[in-house]
Amino acid sequence: MADNRQFHLATRPEGVPSTDTFDLRAVERPDPAPGEALVRVLYLSVDPYMRDRMRAGESYAQPWAVGDPLRGGAVCEVIESNGAGFEPGDTVVGELPWAEYATANGSDLTPVDTGGLPISTALGVLGMPGRTAYFGTREVAEPKADDWMVVSGAAGAVGSVVGQLGEHQGANVVGVAGSDEKCEWLTDDLGFTAAINYKEEDVGARLDEVADGVDVYYDNVGGPVTDAVWGRLNVDARVAVCGQIALYNDEEIPTGPRKLGKLIETRARVEGLLVRDFAPRFREATEHLAALVTAGDLQYRETVTEGLENAPDAFLGLFEGENVGKQVVKVADADGE
Amino acid sequence: MADNRQFHLATRPEGVPSTDTFDLRAVERPDPAPGEALVRVLYLSVDPYMRDRMRAGESYAQPWAVGDPLRGGAVCEVIESNGAGFEPGDTVVGELPWAEYATANGSDLTPVDTGGLPISTALGVLGMPGRTAYFGTREVAEPKADDWMVVSGAAGAVGSVVGQLGEHQGANVVGVAGSDEKCEWLTDDLGFTAAINYKEEDVGARLDEVADGVDVYYDNVGGPVTDAVWGRLNVDARVAVCGQIALYNDEEIPTGPRKLGKLIETRARVEGLLVRDFAPRFREATEHLAALVTAGDLQYRETVTEGLENAPDAFLGLFEGENVGKQVVKVADADGE
Repeated sequence: MADNRQFHLATRPEGVPSTDTFDLRAVERPDPAPGEALVRVLYLSVDPYMRDRMRAGESYAQPWAVGDPLRGGAVCEVIESNGAGFEPGDTVVGELPWAEYATANGSDLTPVDTGGLPISTALGVLGMPGRTAYFGTREVAEPKADDWMVVSGAAGAVGSVVGQLGEHQGANVVGVAGSDEKCEWLTDDLGFTAAINYKEEDVGARLDEVADGVDVYYDNVGGPVTDAVWGRLNVDARVAVCGQIALYNDEEIPTGPRKLGKLIETRARVEGLLVRDFAPRFREATEHLAALVTAGDLQYRETVTEGLENAPDAFLGLFEGENVGKQVVKVADADGE
Repeated sequence: MADNRQFHLATRPEGVPSTDTFDLRAVERPDPAPGEALVRVLYLSVDPYMRDRMRAGESYAQPWAVGDPLRGGAVCEVIESNGAGFEPGDTVVGELPWAEYATANGSDLTPVDTGGLPISTALGVLGMPGRTAYFGTREVAEPKADDWMVVSGAAGAVGSVVGQLGEHQGANVVGVAGSDEKCEWLTDDLGFTAAINYKEEDVGARLDEVADGVDVYYDNVGGPVTDAVWGRLNVDARVAVCGQIALYNDEEIPTGPRKLGKLIETRARVEGLLVRDFAPRFREATEHLAALVTAGDLQYRETVTEGLENAPDAFLGLFEGENVGKQVVKVADADGE
């Protein structure tokens, strides 16, 4: 009985994925094995790193095989627990297939406690992107009072939190984003010192106008935006490399200016980060971020796409910059239909 | 009375400098002002960083003006002291013009004490290159026991010391150099685990054969060698960016593969260094290195070019890899002729 739908990887994309990359299949609702729960997916997360899993070959993420279900973070309601340690009706988060229903080991599910905030925040400001921002800012980028801090992908799920955390440290934060609407959100609502629309403005020239060099660069995008920032690094600058979304759809490693010499001139430190390295401290991050949101000191936005069938569009929109804040897919209502 | 000769910058080179870049002038031997010493230059240092000073525009080094004397590290004999705090006959080191005779403030000169080693070592293993290797290895690259450590420019003044200091930490050191003769020196005399002749061999393929990835990369050259090493960085690798000699003669910033994504995958740290940041600790470095040389635990070589008039050739040879170890120019004998 095909009472479930699930996305599978249809083919490995060459360059920019298309809807042909995704295969929505009618499948059976799985039975939970001992220790597992059957869950109904409420919200799915789509994230840029998933592009890398569609690629054959080595990366920090295991590649998906063609035909495999696509997977990602999801907030779910427990329907049935076969000794999984949850009760029907519990709200949980875990890595699950892009599906309406799925099973998971109880040990792979975490109770969702957003303290009164919408449960979708467990995929955004209180989830993986929020934690990435928290640890990347605190442990790698290390903005200090009066630093000039640039954040690329600044209106995204990670960047928008990074910039606000930078402000909390007293840094002057300049966001780089892809539309005037996003830039206005950054400056008018989030309190960024300045914002640059990289699709309309010369990032380097604008940086020269608004900032006194760059002490901290939190990079979510790579490519030409990063080139412009890199050329303006100050002595002892820190660069946190968190994402390179501008490059993820390239089949060959793209070329760009060789800028390691700038590191000699500035003695800058450049460091990559993966949030999973901080897993033992996830609770610390979530509690810190939840307290900030509750106190009104950390704002967030979500872009919600309705319907599992539209998950590919939501994913593809990430590479077009169609989301403001965290992009999620609403698959079902929490109350049962 | 033109009883002195001195090199001046004739023109700013475009691309690779030539002998036209340098203008050897007959000039007068200067008189030492109060607080100054008149010195006779015995050994001149030529170093890759000087290429940068020939370029207009910003760098970590102040650019020379056209017509200015070229300057660099020099070991000298004091001829006359006008209250400079030295005695005639003292051996000193300082930054001086490329000349036979020059004056300098006493406060800009340091007594040479090489503990029985040749005085030219004050420009090499016990001088700026040795100190660069010491601080760059100890404070930035941080090799540990059993690390796979790659050193580019490994047969140069800095790289040859870096590799040996890495071995002292228990790392497996792979040197990249530009001739079989250099590679044999690294493996047979300096005890490197392996050496790769980048002019004859595929650096990446050879690294795959001889090493288990790269935990530490000490980069003196940049360019394609660095690309090959970068692609093989291990998790938590450290990259010390000390020099980019392969790029110094480029007029435009050259392009190469964009590899910041590798830093996310590996959470590697990349950091530039300038030895002058460690000036308060120079004595520590020199004493450490001198003790190692005296004990037979640190070997060095020097390539000596005879005659001030040949300083340009010695400098240009750096970019052709003609030196093994430290390249110096012998301008005069210590004993007076």
